[in-house]
Amino acid sequence: MRQHRIQLAESEMPTRWYNVLHDLPTPPPPVLHPGTGQPVGPDDLAPLFPMALIEQEVTNAQYVEIPGEVLDVYRLWRPSPLYRAYQLEKALGTPARIYYKYEGVSPAGSHKPNTSVPQAFYNARAGIRRLTTETGAGQWGTALAFACAQFGLECEVWQVRASYDQKPYRRMMIETFGGTVHPSPSTLTAAGRAILAEHPDSSGSLGIAISEAVEVAAQHADTNYALGSVLNHVLLHQTVIGEEALLQLARVGETPDLLVGCTGGGSNFGGLMFPFLRERWAGRMSPTIRAVEPTACPSLTQGTYAYDFGDTAGTTPLMKMHTLGHDFVPDPIHAGGLRYHGMSPLVSHLYETGEMEAIAKPQSECFAAGVLFARTEGILPAPEPTHALAAAIEEARRCAETGEEKVILTALCGHGHLDLPAYASYLAGSVTDHEWGDSDTQAALQASLARLPQLS
Amino acid sequence: MRQHRIQLAESEMPTRWYNVLHDLPTPPPPVLHPGTGQPVGPDDLAPLFPMALIEQEVTNAQYVEIPGEVLDVYRLWRPSPLYRAYQLEKALGTPARIYYKYEGVSPAGSHKPNTSVPQAFYNARAGIRRLTTETGAGQWGTALAFACAQFGLECEVWQVRASYDQKPYRRMMIETFGGTVHPSPSTLTAAGRAILAEHPDSSGSLGIAISEAVEVAAQHADTNYALGSVLNHVLLHQTVIGEEALLQLARVGETPDLLVGCTGGGSNFGGLMFPFLRERWAGRMSPTIRAVEPTACPSLTQGTYAYDFGDTAGTTPLMKMHTLGHDFVPDPIHAGGLRYHGMSPLVSHLYETGEMEAIAKPQSECFAAGVLFARTEGILPAPEPTHALAAAIEEARRCAETGEEKVILTALCGHGHLDLPAYASYLAGSVTDHEWGDSDTQAALQASLARLPQLS
Repeated sequence: MRQHRIQLAESEMPTRWYNVLHDLPTPPPPVLHPGTGQPVGPDDLAPLFPMALIEQEVTNAQYVEIPGEVLDVYRLWRPSPLYRAYQLEKALGTPARIYYKYEGVSPAGSHKPNTSVPQAFYNARAGIRRLTTETGAGQWGTALAFACAQFGLECEVWQVRASYDQKPYRRMMIETFGGTVHPSPSTLTAAGRAILAEHPDSSGSLGIAISEAVEVAAQHADTNYALGSVLNHVLLHQTVIGEEALLQLARVGETPDLLVGCTGGGSNFGGLMFPFLRERWAGRMSPTIRAVEPTACPSLTQGTYAYDFGDTAGTTPLMKMHTLGHDFVPDPIHAGGLRYHGMSPLVSHLYETGEMEAIAKPQSECFAAGVLFARTEGILPAPEPTHALAAAIEEARRCAETGEEKVILTALCGHGHLDLPAYASYLAGSVTDHEWGDSDTQAALQASLARLPQLS
Repeated sequence: MRQHRIQLAESEMPTRWYNVLHDLPTPPPPVLHPGTGQPVGPDDLAPLFPMALIEQEVTNAQYVEIPGEVLDVYRLWRPSPLYRAYQLEKALGTPARIYYKYEGVSPAGSHKPNTSVPQAFYNARAGIRRLTTETGAGQWGTALAFACAQFGLECEVWQVRASYDQKPYRRMMIETFGGTVHPSPSTLTAAGRAILAEHPDSSGSLGIAISEAVEVAAQHADTNYALGSVLNHVLLHQTVIGEEALLQLARVGETPDLLVGCTGGGSNFGGLMFPFLRERWAGRMSPTIRAVEPTACPSLTQGTYAYDFGDTAGTTPLMKMHTLGHDFVPDPIHAGGLRYHGMSPLVSHLYETGEMEAIAKPQSECFAAGVLFARTEGILPAPEPTHALAAAIEEARRCAETGEEKVILTALCGHGHLDLPAYASYLAGSVTDHEWGDSDTQAALQASLARLPQLS
């Protein structure tokens, strides 16, 4: 009898995170202080993060033990299921075998709680009383609010004003989990007040929201800041995804030929791929690893590998990464989680060193993939992972022509229940695609990088 | 190590539905034709339903085999998980052990696909090309649209105008699964046009929407009608819930002392409870079985056990059931799935014969339970099952006082991702409760029943 879901027992849940830094063939460039141009140290980060997370950001240990208190919360939804997409394969008439690792079963409906839970735990253990963060569409704010509820922390979220007004469901979910949401820019911070003085009707940006959340955290000893992607410790926490998927594929005797995942900040992608990279470096498998980004925000395929700020306002340390320029504002595509100007330094380094490839997809092709997936597999995907699904379907169709029985594993990082207006817009024919490459955009990128502090 | 989730293997999924009719200590009263006052026969139902479902409506066999094509689709989300609510128990400080059977993992996010899938299958096998149905808030329409996509049927849904306008997310989900949604009353049917002629601004009702869907199905030989609750064959299909839960509790060596579920039309409740009733009648366990209904629509605790119509317009056969009168219009509480004037004849019969008990809960207590559940267990429940959760929490708190280590099993029949505005309303303090018992309502019930056709 065919088996649709490969489900691990709770006793098989990973008990340690995998640190890809330990096994990288070459080390990635250091993160630099924008004032001194020197590598940042723990003291630079201590006003915002507890020491346990700072250590995880820089450690070279191959594995980090997951605390029992974190495992107890992970157990609410982990191990997450791996599915064989029989109904999708049938619809495509492909000899390829398609598997998807589904993170939409989590409390927030995405992979984000894999890191919000340990971040809340380590902060609570360090005596912190409150966490601040920014959120755009709201996935990360939801995940952090849930994690704070588990460990008795207050959670204060600055949400980009445009999303706050237009996507109220996410805000309601953050509040149901006990979090407080402020539209950003707000009058609660100097950064917010400065923006509002100049632009009273500002619809906000992630950069402004980060500035507000960081400002409040830096001003209060009992308050820290939490980030949902990009940083090393975030990707470290997400490796539970890949460790489980390795076990699950082995359970059905499969070795993947192709791994595909979408990339925004890179945490879902890294979380799935890093354990498979370890296996490839050890000679136990040789999958192709493919990142899929939106044509409207193609940091890997069209960006430059350079030192740049992580936020629009230019307040973070400088990271060597693929970037479209820290003041690049992507088109308002529906996959809000993929609208980030940069890319995790770890993923950027792997791309630059040829360990993985990347392609870009227009959103209409991605929504078509999402609708086909919903009608066949019964899961409505978030707009972000429809990018990975589009690439998986493209490969499976290629296999239908060539007859290749490729094993494809795709990261289905979240459900789209709160993204239904995006699907309605697609079905109504009002989704537009972005063509990259006009000279204005390239010139803007070069100008943005030219404005960076000069590094020695 | 504690185990949060009890997950069955796909090979342990039930392969047959359990028919409680076979084991009832006394048979339930027959369904009557409103014109003749005589029991309805297969020919009366043939214009709307395929013969396979009509047979399931009246069969006395103890079990009905589930077709392989239906099992293949069930496998997309079944067996559904049973969870031990460790985090909730900790928050309540109770010695009770609380388990919940979660149906929110289905494509529609509730138990409804358990019956929409076989209904679509049997109709497709009978050569039917299109199914029509009504939907209120939209759960049932979503489930039927998904099932039709699986078997290549068209799906046409008449959605109550008020919900169509106010709850667009469900409509969008139906359309994403490939269904067509009409606001009801519509100009597409004589029933709809008649209402609109008199009330151009009508916000519709379930009764009107049923009339429209039935009218279209009756007029076209290639079109049938599908119903999402109340009928025997619907409850039959839902027994996969209870069969799985029995296996799952046995897996961890537990015997339930109390089973609680919410009741609207009764299909989620019956689906969980019937297999446990079989075990109780066989002397293998002796759980208390408790239905929980909203104080705003208390058909079991305040209604009358009488023959009544299933729809507001009075077009269905007459069923002996607990009813508030077929023209009763309940307050617009957020648990739209529990706003039904009647109750499944099977559940009504079991209540009348003392096999189960029933209580009513005001919605504010239910939302408080839902918020506590979300923050502890990480799942946002739909407003309907918060009624069952409120009763489970009430019992667990009682156990905290008495020290009893009761085993409580509750039916968590769906997630509340598309019900977030209801939570926001509760958190804002604007949810109001309904006190039952004013004489006007009782008088209206008696008047409604007095208007029924006279039966011999």
